[in-house]
Amino acid sequence: MQQSFDRQRAMATIGARLGRVAAGEVDIELPFRDDLTQQHGFLHAGILGAVLDSACGYAAYSLMPPDAAVLSIEFKVNLLAPARGELVIARGRVKKAGRTIMVCDADAFAVTGGVEKLVASMTGTMMVVTGRSDLLG
Amino acid sequence: MQQSFDRQRAMATIGARLGRVAAGEVDIELPFRDDLTQQHGFLHAGILGAVLDSACGYAAYSLMPPDAAVLSIEFKVNLLAPARGELVIARGRVKKAGRTIMVCDADAFAVTGGVEKLVASMTGTMMVVTGRSDLLG
Amino acid sequence: MQQSFDRQRAMATIGARLGRVAAGEVDIELPFRDDLTQQHGFLHAGILGAVLDSACGYAAYSLMPPDAAVLSIEFKVNLLAPARGELVIARGRVKKAGRTIMVCDADAFAVTGGVEKLVASMTGTMMVVTGRSDLLG
Amino acid sequence: MQQSFDRQRAMATIGARLGRVAAGEVDIELPFRDDLTQQHGFLHAGILGAVLDSACGYAAYSLMPPDAAVLSIEFKVNLLAPARGELVIARGRVKKAGRTIMVCDADAFAVTGGVEKLVASMTGTMMVVTGRSDLLG
Repeated sequence: MQQSFDRQRAMATIGARLGRVAAGEVDIELPFRDDLTQQHGFLHAGILGAVLDSACGYAAYSLMPPDAAVLSIEFKVNLLAPARGELVIARGRVKKAGRTIMVCDADAFAVTGGVEKLVASMTGTMMVVTGRSDLLG
Repeated sequence: MQQSFDRQRAMATIGARLGRVAAGEVDIELPFRDDLTQQHGFLHAGILGAVLDSACGYAAYSLMPPDAAVLSIEFKVNLLAPARGELVIARGRVKKAGRTIMVCDADAFAVTGGVEKLVASMTGTMMVVTGRSDLLG
Repeated sequence: MQQSFDRQRAMATIGARLGRVAAGEVDIELPFRDDLTQQHGFLHAGILGAVLDSACGYAAYSLMPPDAAVLSIEFKVNLLAPARGELVIARGRVKKAGRTIMVCDADAFAVTGGVEKLVASMTGTMMVVTGRSDLLG
Repeated sequence: MQQSFDRQRAMATIGARLGRVAAGEVDIELPFRDDLTQQHGFLHAGILGAVLDSACGYAAYSLMPPDAAVLSIEFKVNLLAPARGELVIARGRVKKAGRTIMVCDADAFAVTGGVEKLVASMTGTMMVVTGRSDLLG
């Protein structure tokens, strides 16, 4: 999983890193940076969405066979509070693991001085793609 | 609008720029960059979502009074095809302009050699916030 | 398609009927009934969602091979205005027709005295299921 | 709440009833009926959506002041398994209670012989409407 994540160059560009990994549960952490904000100084909703999508995707990937790849087919984000602080943690978990479709939820928390505040949530639908060696990893 | 967009530092970080602007319709353009990809070399779904969200937000903002700010309250993205090429154009338009809630649609097209291909779409719900001078612009 | 629709007993229960059918485009019509309202006398959001989902599903079904069945895997509805009048028409159309996944949009219009008013919209993701004779039709 | 629910005539038409009610949490129960099915004999996705939307709406309503009304502005449903059995229970809960916007989640379970199976989930955005006596209840 770390190898696959390291190939997600968009995650490196925004400074996101893989956190806790368990079967069906993956955290992605994003240290706050001024160059990821929207016009009011909060973390851009789209950047939050990117981190939540990765958390969902890797949570699904953690339950797939080794020869499978994961593709997001759709996701929905609710922005619940302005996101600022030191760090955002997106916690993804598989809600329903099907053979070809996995549905995942993720919550994003802004962390300030060790205190977590829920700032956004996602539901995403992921597709399990097999027999496509060009997509492996 | 350009002033507000220039304060969206996340858009500068990923290299997005404001394109065509009309009442209720805004395009955001994102030149393809290798450092915005996911593990298979396509544009990261989350980056696509960020550009679509900005297109929706500015389309809504274009119809608001001068003392109002726009906040995304939720958005949903469908990924329709792998995104690669020279440029992505996200075209946002207001579908329903209410006094406090605006609903917007956006389509993202990957452009290669002048040919456009639909790669993703969004529906987003935007809130009109007034009387909050800290959020202006 | 009419045969399949006639087996959707929920549609008969609420009084919905198949309207215009073309390749990738299907209308479902629902005459307004007092027993389909919510607490304020408008058409219940969930009933609107049911009609929009059928319009999306049959639009997708219209592009499928004869041995395929269609299943909704997810949908999102935006309620844009209170729905009242004589009739609701939900117009579904396929936005992207893939081999296993079809993405559809639908708009619902309330009709009063021949005048249409947009009241809700949906984006839905439909799955093409083949080789399951138990699901045919 | 029971008075408001009793005015939701669509809920009576499909046979849904108010179940457990607590602050921020409401269950809606729907006994299975053959006339609520889709073409394969499962509960129609749109009917599931209607029950989930009511569970979300009443969960939000349970936290509102007495002079407020609740309106769904959008909802998203994921269908996770075919729904059949004796009864569906939709369990709604408020995830984020804002002054004007409440975000709710709901899960729907099909119950057969006392065993519950998760069949669908929803995230919905509800608006708190005040000062509109025509919408009360």
